[in-house]
Amino acid sequence: MAKNEKADNKALEQLTKTAKDVYDKSLKGQKPQLTMPVRSLSNVKYEKKGGYLALKNQLKVRTLTYNTVKSFAQTLKVMAISKELIQTDDHASKRETYYISKNWGAARFDEQPESDAVMDDIEAMMSVNREQLRFLPEEKGGEVAGQLVVIDKDRDTGKPLRIDYTGFGSGAYSIPISVEHLQFQTKAKFILCIETAGMFQRLVAHNYWRKANCVLISMGGVPTRATRRFVRRMADTLKIPVYTFVDGDPYGIANIYRTLKVGSGNAAHINEFFCVPTATFMGITPQDIIDYKLPTHPLKDVDIKRAKDAIKNDPFFKFHKTWTQAIEQMIKMGVRAEQQALAKHGLNYVIEEYLPQKLKKTDKFLP
Amino acid sequence: MAKNEKADNKALEQLTKTAKDVYDKSLKGQKPQLTMPVRSLSNVKYEKKGGYLALKNQLKVRTLTYNTVKSFAQTLKVMAISKELIQTDDHASKRETYYISKNWGAARFDEQPESDAVMDDIEAMMSVNREQLRFLPEEKGGEVAGQLVVIDKDRDTGKPLRIDYTGFGSGAYSIPISVEHLQFQTKAKFILCIETAGMFQRLVAHNYWRKANCVLISMGGVPTRATRRFVRRMADTLKIPVYTFVDGDPYGIANIYRTLKVGSGNAAHINEFFCVPTATFMGITPQDIIDYKLPTHPLKDVDIKRAKDAIKNDPFFKFHKTWTQAIEQMIKMGVRAEQQALAKHGLNYVIEEYLPQKLKKTDKFLP
Repeated sequence: MAKNEKADNKALEQLTKTAKDVYDKSLKGQKPQLTMPVRSLSNVKYEKKGGYLALKNQLKVRTLTYNTVKSFAQTLKVMAISKELIQTDDHASKRETYYISKNWGAARFDEQPESDAVMDDIEAMMSVNREQLRFLPEEKGGEVAGQLVVIDKDRDTGKPLRIDYTGFGSGAYSIPISVEHLQFQTKAKFILCIETAGMFQRLVAHNYWRKANCVLISMGGVPTRATRRFVRRMADTLKIPVYTFVDGDPYGIANIYRTLKVGSGNAAHINEFFCVPTATFMGITPQDIIDYKLPTHPLKDVDIKRAKDAIKNDPFFKFHKTWTQAIEQMIKMGVRAEQQALAKHGLNYVIEEYLPQKLKKTDKFLP
Repeated sequence: MAKNEKADNKALEQLTKTAKDVYDKSLKGQKPQLTMPVRSLSNVKYEKKGGYLALKNQLKVRTLTYNTVKSFAQTLKVMAISKELIQTDDHASKRETYYISKNWGAARFDEQPESDAVMDDIEAMMSVNREQLRFLPEEKGGEVAGQLVVIDKDRDTGKPLRIDYTGFGSGAYSIPISVEHLQFQTKAKFILCIETAGMFQRLVAHNYWRKANCVLISMGGVPTRATRRFVRRMADTLKIPVYTFVDGDPYGIANIYRTLKVGSGNAAHINEFFCVPTATFMGITPQDIIDYKLPTHPLKDVDIKRAKDAIKNDPFFKFHKTWTQAIEQMIKMGVRAEQQALAKHGLNYVIEEYLPQKLKKTDKFLP
């Protein structure tokens, strides 16, 4: 993993400051404390200005006592790992971090959820993201194809590496688990984030990105942190719009699109970094199901529950009237349609008709 | 998807021959028939010479009658789609094929499992693989990094595209859903197939492939058809060994490794193309758990069942005594260990100690 010095320095500074505070308090005979935001849905709000789900300001304080000594020690040990990882330009997966603790005697983690929670606490405490602390998830990123050049760096030689996706043919670039160090160059006019690998492959196989002059992202369901961060950094750097193309169902809307656009409710302390507030929703909309006479499936109970939850409880959908209306329309219609349902009109109808028609009216996209 | 003319011609020939036979019989007033292998475990054997699970020779005959008219028509319609896809150099996902049928009136498929089964039948009937018929799965392939150049072709210009993975930095190449048209160039000494994305990322981040002069493949669990075919075509073309590095548990051995090496039991009609008979098993072995003092987890009931099934019922493990012994050793030890458990000895112990030590004794790898 190549270095991003600014991010590294910020993380090191936070780690050292927190540790020094604990050390100083201990020397003075005072009880050391660690203060961090409460990470629960009750402490989450929709941050209109930034456009993401953010933490409110409830804090929890962990004081070193007889009862907290193990988790206190574990938190400091994990902070020490993070410091070493940054200084040696290395990373550890969440699973590896769990295994490292096996040499800590009484302070070792018994199950991985314990070490994961400590990493989440440190991430929230430091206000830097876990990737900057060099703790990386196992989950794969998405795939990228199209009109894009990424600049990476060779770890051994330090030389910049220029990776031009336009020469990838039928293949694609697989997003690494950390993307902080990447730089982007493009002449593309927009970024298209696609739900299914099948649709992505169709657009890649037909070089759709060349005709439409765009970057194609395969999210493969709910986008991972790495995928969201990759799209976000592209959107910030390149200043081009991000359009989302998912199934016309409550899962595509309330899970996939919502997570890409505003982040997830249970990770609000890092949504600031891991969402794409400029993203808009191209389709499949409930209205598309009518306009394009798409084959549908009836909404299942779980779909209806998800849709009703979204308009009742989700601060993002509640904020946008057009979304409330669209979701109500879907519930009333009682059906859902997949993006591949466009194949009813011919396999390449999506390339020749649907996408060009939709892209003429980007101002009509749902927010 | 670029063309592979030899494969295309074979598929077209088979499709036309089968259709012509049906047509001729109909004209003569005879009942047309379609003959295909029985696709069930009872019709599967371990083909020692080729090194894969293969079909035995039970056949089923589908005769056109009042009762079979719908499935008979569907089979011919899907064959016609395949012919058109080959001739227009296009592909259809399994889901798209299902949706195309929505315009077939009474012959339309009601649920996708019906159209999937018809594709499997045609694949078995033609003795060509589904990819050659241009029906592609949705599932993503794995990732590749390291000492490898792949030659693809630009669909629009027909020009060859040379993709050099050594310049990919922290990223990787994502294997496309069809790989028949790719060519390979390398100076690498071996191919290392890795179970988890986390371990793959560690080896990529540290440019392990450069030190060890190899190609790295991330299988991400049980390898998909595209991943297996990619490794198989590399192994055939480049004539270098394939080593497998998975978790030391019954799932890593009896599911992931077994599927890579000899294919899967319920797809025996295509294992000939989709397995890597030259692959060997590097680790984690039950003996590694002892030799490297790895942290373990107890085997669960499902693990023990899987392990016992493998030595009792799986023709591949039954054939190899060393495998039967290794699996019996694991059952006796009652524990399993993950590849990331090596992190107990330090995050890069796997790169500095484990892999170099194992690679000195490739003749000791399990078959």
